[in-house]
Order: sequence, then C-alpha cells, then structure tokens
Amino acid sequence: MELFYVLLVLLVATRILGEVAVRLRQPALVGELLAGVLIGVVVMRFSGTFPVLAGLADNEVFVALTDLGIFFLMLLGGLELRPKELTETSGQAFVVAAAAMILPLAMGAGVAWFFLPDSDHRVAQTLFVGTALAITAVPVAIRVLMDLDLLQSKLGRVVVSAAVFDDVLSLVLLAVLTGVLETGGAPGPGALGLLLGKVAVFFAVTGVAGLYVVPALGSFVKRHVRVDEFELSFLLIVAFAYAVLAEALAMHFIVGAFVAGLFFSRSTVDEEVFHQVEGKLEGISSGFLAPLFFASIGLHLDLSALGAIPGFVALLVAVAFLSKLVGAAVPARLAGFSTRESSAIGLAMSARGAVELVIAGIALRAGLFEQPDPPPPTVEHLFSAIVIVAMVTTLAVPVALRWLLDADAEGGGSGG
Amino acid sequence: MELFYVLLVLLVATRILGEVAVRLRQPALVGELLAGVLIGVVVMRFSGTFPVLAGLADNEVFVALTDLGIFFLMLLGGLELRPKELTETSGQAFVVAAAAMILPLAMGAGVAWFFLPDSDHRVAQTLFVGTALAITAVPVAIRVLMDLDLLQSKLGRVVVSAAVFDDVLSLVLLAVLTGVLETGGAPGPGALGLLLGKVAVFFAVTGVAGLYVVPALGSFVKRHVRVDEFELSFLLIVAFAYAVLAEALAMHFIVGAFVAGLFFSRSTVDEEVFHQVEGKLEGISSGFLAPLFFASIGLHLDLSALGAIPGFVALLVAVAFLSKLVGAAVPARLAGFSTRESSAIGLAMSARGAVELVIAGIALRAGLFEQPDPPPPTVEHLFSAIVIVAMVTTLAVPVALRWLLDADAEGGGSGG
Repeated sequence: MELFYVLLVLLVATRILGEVAVRLRQPALVGELLAGVLIGVVVMRFSGTFPVLAGLADNEVFVALTDLGIFFLMLLGGLELRPKELTETSGQAFVVAAAAMILPLAMGAGVAWFFLPDSDHRVAQTLFVGTALAITAVPVAIRVLMDLDLLQSKLGRVVVSAAVFDDVLSLVLLAVLTGVLETGGAPGPGALGLLLGKVAVFFAVTGVAGLYVVPALGSFVKRHVRVDEFELSFLLIVAFAYAVLAEALAMHFIVGAFVAGLFFSRSTVDEEVFHQVEGKLEGISSGFLAPLFFASIGLHLDLSALGAIPGFVALLVAVAFLSKLVGAAVPARLAGFSTRESSAIGLAMSARGAVELVIAGIALRAGLFEQPDPPPPTVEHLFSAIVIVAMVTTLAVPVALRWLLDADAEGGGSGG
Repeated sequence: MELFYVLLVLLVATRILGEVAVRLRQPALVGELLAGVLIGVVVMRFSGTFPVLAGLADNEVFVALTDLGIFFLMLLGGLELRPKELTETSGQAFVVAAAAMILPLAMGAGVAWFFLPDSDHRVAQTLFVGTALAITAVPVAIRVLMDLDLLQSKLGRVVVSAAVFDDVLSLVLLAVLTGVLETGGAPGPGALGLLLGKVAVFFAVTGVAGLYVVPALGSFVKRHVRVDEFELSFLLIVAFAYAVLAEALAMHFIVGAFVAGLFFSRSTVDEEVFHQVEGKLEGISSGFLAPLFFASIGLHLDLSALGAIPGFVALLVAVAFLSKLVGAAVPARLAGFSTRESSAIGLAMSARGAVELVIAGIALRAGLFEQPDPPPPTVEHLFSAIVIVAMVTTLAVPVALRWLLDADAEGGGSGG
C-alpha cells in the first residue's frame, strides 16, 4: 500500500466533508462517512485510475489503522466519563439496553424467518439478521454525543452505559451465531455458560486492576519515571492490555479500550497531566485516525441490494429504526425521561455502523449467503442489505438527533 | 497480526528499557533499540512460543506503523527547527555533509573492492558497501539531539542541516546503486541529470509551497475552519503531500516529512495553537510510534556475520566510525568549532540506523549477496555485516556523545 498517498487522500476528503457537515450543523462524522462513500463510488467507477484505493477496504494495513481509530475513539470515550456516573445510571441503562436489544433481535429474526427461503442455513441467517439489527455502535454513539456536546449529560451517560451493555450482550449473541455457523446448531448451555463466565472474568479482572493496580502504578509513574511522554504510554499500555484481555476472553477489543479509559482518571495522574494526555488522544483521534475509521465504514457501501431487493432493504431499515427506537425510548420514558429525551435516547441507540460490519464480514466469510444453492436474491444480497442498514442508520442518527435537539431548543425558547 | 498484543509487548519493553537508559544518563532511544534486540533474540530462541512476534520485522502492518514512526519523528524534527536558522549554517553544513559523505563512500568502497571476490556483482557490491557507510541516519541524529537537548543549539543545527544534505546526496547514490542493480552498469549522465532535476523540482515546489501556499492556507484555516483538531490535520495533510511528492520524485518520504515540519511555523497558525499541535505530535511520537520504530531497527539484528567473518565486520565498523568522524569533524574544526564540538558533530553524523537498513533490504531483494555462486562468506554475510554496522553505530553514537558532553561539562566546570 502506498501509505502516505492513501492517508493524504482520506484525510483531505474526510476533513473537508467533515467541515461541510459542521457548517450544516451536523456532526463531523456524517461528512467523514460520506467522504468514504464518495471515495468508494469514485474508485469503483474509475478503478483503473486509482488502483491503490480500489482494494483499500480490505487492505491489511488500512484495516489496522482503522482498528487503531476505533481503539482511540473508545479510549477517549471512556476517558471522558467517570465510572461513578455510569454506575449511577446503570439500573436505567440496563433496562434500556435489554429492551433495545430484545425487540430488534426478535423483529429482525421475525422478518428474516418470514422472507428467507428454507435451507440448511436458514436458522443461522435468521439469527444473523436479528443479531445485526440488535447491535448498537458504541463508537458511533460516543462520537455523535461528543460532537453534540452531550456525552457528559445524564442522557449521554444513559446512552453510553446502555450501548456498552448492548455491546456485551451482542458479544453473547455473536458467540451463539459463531457457534451456529461452525456447527450448524445452537451452542449448548455449557458453551453459553463458559462465554458468560469469560465476560464475568473480564469485568472482574479489569475492575479490580482498574480500581487498585492502575492507580498504584499511576502514582509510581508520576513520582519516579523520567522518560518523556510516559503518562501517555502508560495509558496506552493499560488500554492495549485490556484490549488483549478482551480478545482473549472472546470479546471485542473496543470493550477493553473503553474500560481502560474509564479507569484512567484525574487522580491516576495529576489534573494537568490528565488534560495533556486527553488533549493528545483527542488530537490523534479527531485529527487523524477517527476520520479514517468513519471513512472506512463508508468505503464498505455495497448498493447491489438496492437494485435487487429494494422492498426488503426498505423493510429492514424501517425495522432497524423502529425496533431500536421503541425498544430504547419506552423504558427511558418509563424511567422518567421526557418524551423528547426518550426519543433522543432511542435515536442515539439506533446507529449500527462499526460492529455490525464486523459481524457481516464474519458471516460472509462463513459462506452464510450461499445457501440454498443457487441463492435467491434475498439471500444473495443479504450482505449488501445489512451494510445498507448500517450506513443508513449511522448517517441518519446524528442528523435526526441534531434536528430533534434543535426543535427542542426552539420549543424550549418559545415556551420560556 | 494480533495488533494490540504486539503493540502491548513493544510499548512495555521499549518504555521500560528507555527509562533504564535515561536513568543511566543515556538517550531513551538506546533503550528502545536494545528492547528491539532483546525481543528479537528471545523470539528467535523461543520462536514456537511467540509465533506472532517471530515474523514481526517483515510484517506489512508493523512496517507501516514504524514508517509512521519515522514520519512523525522527522515531522517533529522539522517543526522544532526554523528554516532561517538552518540556512544560516547551511554553508558550513554543506561542506561538512559533502566531506562526511565522500570519505566513508571512498573508504567503504575501497575496503569492499579489496576484500570481495571478483564476480558480475562486484561493482554493485562495492558501491553498496560505500553507499551504506556514507549514509547518515537523520531520524536517529534528530532523536539523539532531542534527547540531549541539543537540537536547537548551533551544533545541532549544523548536524541536522548536514544530515539532511547527506540524505539528499545519499538518494543520488541510492539511485545510482539501483541503476547498477537493475542494469548491471552505472547509469549514464542522462539518468543522473534526470535524478538531480527531480531533487531540484522537489525543493523548488516544497519551498515555494512552504513559503507562500502553506501560510496562506494556514491563515484561512485559522480564520474559517470550525471542525475540531483541524490544525493538526492541516499539518499532517501538508506533510503527507510532501511525503507523496518526495516519493514521486524518487526521494525517501522522510525528506518530505522533515521539510513540511520546517515550513509549518509559529506564524502559520498562532503561537498557542502551534505549541498544542507540537505537544500532540510529541505525544504520539515519543509516547507511541517512535519507540516502535527504534525497536524495529533492533529487531533486524542478524549476528550471523559475527561468527563467520568477525574480522571483516570489525574492519567495517571501524571504517564506518573513523571515516564519518574524520569526514565531518575536520571541516567543522576548520569552520571554527572547537575540537570537542567538532568531535561531537562527527559523532552525531556517524549513526546509520534507518535508511541503511532500507538500502540493505533493497540490495538483499535484488540478489546482490548471491554472486559469485556459491558466494564466499564475505558476500554471503554482507547483509548481516551491514546490519551490525547500523546497529553498532546507532547504539554507540548517543552513548559516546553523552560521554563527550559530560566530559566537556566537567572540563568546563573545573576550568571555570
């Protein structure tokens, strides 16, 4: 890969369209995603002219850089929240997360079961659609909330807690799906128990380490280490360790990065150093790697399903939005949030983006879209349909949320 | 590649050994290099236990990350210098650079011609050894000078200017070598003229852009752009563009990154923003990517030549040091620097490290070490020998420089 050429093109495109998005009062990530879509379309149209950019979405180096982009984004998201504030809202968040997971799972699976033909893969395909719709994109939610200055509001904390719960729940689902893909049948209670045990071990280890080991090491580093920029390295080391542990325990590395950020607090190092480290992460993330990540989501756009099975795609998009919105907003409303706030929570939970594409990729490699042979259009284009759902939800959420908040502000203005 | 596992191991090892080096009053990069050597040795001994680390030095993703490490290091080096100060010392620096290039080239080629057997590749092999010894590692020199707080002294400026001149001259040499490797003969005056023309075009374009376009765009960005962290992105975009231009004009991307840093001055954005951007680059460089780069140099260590041709290796190391030291120190002394300062300049120019390994890799892939068939030990182990020269010079330079400066300070103390 001609590294610097690729980075130049992507950084110019994402930052310019990001600026345009901000001018239109949208979060920057909308522009960054569209930059990816635009590059993908131009490159597909003129693949001979841009051979380096043509294979970009699957290029190993590019994928690693975008992984670093999600990693920094999640780390920064964790850093800007305090564990105490998250646990304060965790009861509400858990209910929101559970309902916002179960409803889309059931509705997605229902639609898939109804429309997909009978085959050896039908159970797996049904579970795949349900899982894909049940997921919430934590990195997208965090970035949207950051861009809208909502991350540290009560609403933002509920969304982030619920999204993280969702992420953990979705890992259980993903493990079930992987079991089905590998063995053709659902995993037994033993395998499920093992998986839940791993999740528990992860949170126990990272929690204890985060509460006792990280602060002790932090104060050692603060007092004794002389080499330059060690505080930043220290945070990265903790985050890499948590990411490795997460992967070793069958979870996605983004959970590790997020939890590492949570436990690296102002008291781990002193207030000034904390803000310096935060500023440096913010720079590398917003100024360099995060735009690459959002562009990479845009690059994955595959519109073939739009031509082949437009009705099914529209149905999936509608189900994706409605089920998440209702599943998250109703419990939030019952927990005492206003109707507008509940809608905002439901909307913010609706973005799919990141992890959904990872799961779709796993299913694609497992040959899920090849049965029955030859596959009917709904199966053949199922991958494309799910990618379109991810893209539409990720693009629509920040725009709709901005619109809802503006209406809110105006409503509040005329009411006061 | 299990990205986060690799980053965890490397960051822990480099930062701890870097801290040990600083405790022993050595620059951190000495520890970082040794961390790479240590990991390389452990992994070679227990390759079954660490399969992921075993192929690391040639892993595409790892190479890209270390390239980013050199890139950030060079950009930061350029950022911390002012073009005016460099041009003030450029006369002296050019003489130092020329002499510090010609003497090692002649002596290296002489030793190679004398010891290597006659074959079709003898001319190329001779030129290769000369080129490898003639090179100065700009990234190493910059980092050593930074670690010793000398980068902005007059001595530091002469070293950096001379090293950059050397880098450009070495590109001409490399192009000649590449021509010899490809065609078996030296390139004609036409090819050489074309190459020099490209170098001239690069400096003309980047100079004009740096003096007029970058400041104009910078003040536009400062006044109009609203999206977060755009100043950092702007600097990266300029640097990526310069790196791409450098590669398009047959030069190494590090020259582009360095020149981009030179032209991004306090007046491009305002003083406060400049320091923020500088701090962020410093964090990502010293705290994350630069240690990976120095560890990667250590990972390349291949000691086979030590057992097979120890005398030849010792001779090459001695010639490498002496020729660079004399070649750089004598003109510096004649230009009015004190004997100690001239020795320091000669020492600082002696590190090979980065680019030498790139060139050795190119020669290896071109089959330079396979002729005559079967190759005698001096040819078979020439790659290893050159890698050892790179390692020894890169390790010895900062240690020797530290020692020289300490002796200087003590001498100054007792004299005053």
